[in-house]
Amino acid sequence: YTVTAIDTRREAVDYAIENGIIDKGYHAVEQDAVGTADAVIFALYPHVFKEWIRRYQHLFKSGAFLTDVTGVKAGVVYEIQAMLRPDVEFIAAHPMAGREVSGVENSDESIFRKANYIVTPTPANSEVAVEWCKNLGRILGFAHISVLTPEEHDDKIAFVSQLTHCISVALMTCNGDPLLADYTGDSFRDLTRIAKINDVMWSELFLLNKDALLKHMDAFLAEVNALRQMIEEGDVAGMRKKMQLSAARRAAFDHPGR
Amino acid sequence: YTVTAIDTRREAVDYAIENGIIDKGYHAVEQDAVGTADAVIFALYPHVFKEWIRRYQHLFKSGAFLTDVTGVKAGVVYEIQAMLRPDVEFIAAHPMAGREVSGVENSDESIFRKANYIVTPTPANSEVAVEWCKNLGRILGFAHISVLTPEEHDDKIAFVSQLTHCISVALMTCNGDPLLADYTGDSFRDLTRIAKINDVMWSELFLLNKDALLKHMDAFLAEVNALRQMIEEGDVAGMRKKMQLSAARRAAFDHPGR
Repeated sequence: YTVTAIDTRREAVDYAIENGIIDKGYHAVEQDAVGTADAVIFALYPHVFKEWIRRYQHLFKSGAFLTDVTGVKAGVVYEIQAMLRPDVEFIAAHPMAGREVSGVENSDESIFRKANYIVTPTPANSEVAVEWCKNLGRILGFAHISVLTPEEHDDKIAFVSQLTHCISVALMTCNGDPLLADYTGDSFRDLTRIAKINDVMWSELFLLNKDALLKHMDAFLAEVNALRQMIEEGDVAGMRKKMQLSAARRAAFDHPGR
Repeated sequence: YTVTAIDTRREAVDYAIENGIIDKGYHAVEQDAVGTADAVIFALYPHVFKEWIRRYQHLFKSGAFLTDVTGVKAGVVYEIQAMLRPDVEFIAAHPMAGREVSGVENSDESIFRKANYIVTPTPANSEVAVEWCKNLGRILGFAHISVLTPEEHDDKIAFVSQLTHCISVALMTCNGDPLLADYTGDSFRDLTRIAKINDVMWSELFLLNKDALLKHMDAFLAEVNALRQMIEEGDVAGMRKKMQLSAARRAAFDHPGR
């Protein structure tokens, strides 16, 4: 495949060319870059993504497939599909792979290999586009490819991704002890790896998925409060039952390829 | 060093000998094993540890140093020091390294290399014993060795270890979706790695450190609730401020050797 990229950061484009990651790069939106592409993958903040489509969609080659990596779907997909030219198709996807650092200089294709790839079609999407997008996930090397509605996706992501980021942030902000690093074990490091968070992106993602996130935050808060009550009352049987359920459910995650 | 081990599980002793981990092993408490040791390291549930000392301390060689790996200190150390023969000395320690699997078959000395080792002396301990114990941490290859009172230790551990285990358990018990593994990213896997928890051990550790744990649970719950409120109200500035504080604090953890 011939891979072309547009990035506002000139050094990112230079790095990608020098390291053989892309064939050609641009640091501004140009007809030459957009108009020749059979497929376009968007990695932009949601509001920038919408604005980009509004402003530049006239540049797309007729028949092009568009997809994305946006972390929320219902608040993005329908709006973009509604405004899009009828001769191009947007099929949304969420590659569930990322790092706590950003930029092409930190890119690592091996993170795809054990990861999930979720395609989120709407009734406006064609079978061909859904298959094309699933195949893109396969070509990129993802371990597991699935199809969900935008709403199903947002509900699951509110739990596995957005709630976990809220927890990680709250863990770092609830204690100001400057010497914690000297007394820390792996568990705390694991739970706060994602606490080095991109505040612009995540505050936007949280608000675009507010209802689902609040629902899962409330369920989580209820469970922490229940455990807190058991600890306060010395309810060993209750604590052990919760821990046994937790251990059994978590064990189910540890099968090959995940 | 000549290393001798006692383990109730006969296969563990056999495995350790066959793999050159120990020189000699026993699957019951024997005079020969205990009475010849210059140093004894205890890895037992707290109530079993106390019972063991009560029952077998007559076997220790005079002048022996005892230490341990117990995850709570104040609820264990004073009681053991108070009942101990005057011619042996117990200097408590907490190696902050572990895995989510147990048993000698899963042992891995490399987990010590980036980890913290905490020595927790009381006024009953001698300078010589504290230095001996710090040196044990160095010999085992720990990256950072520190000294805290049992109370300071328990306060910090309630936060970095016990609270994180509570969070991980609550995350697994608050959602029964059986298909989560198919839609999970690294963040959820990271936050729940410790959810495969030993319910007997951790329920005992939680109750032995109840006050400190409840204090940190309350501080964490307050922060999650504050973030929840900001999300509900669409308070972007408030969310971003929390996330920036979180990111800055977490970045401070990422320096060499930690």
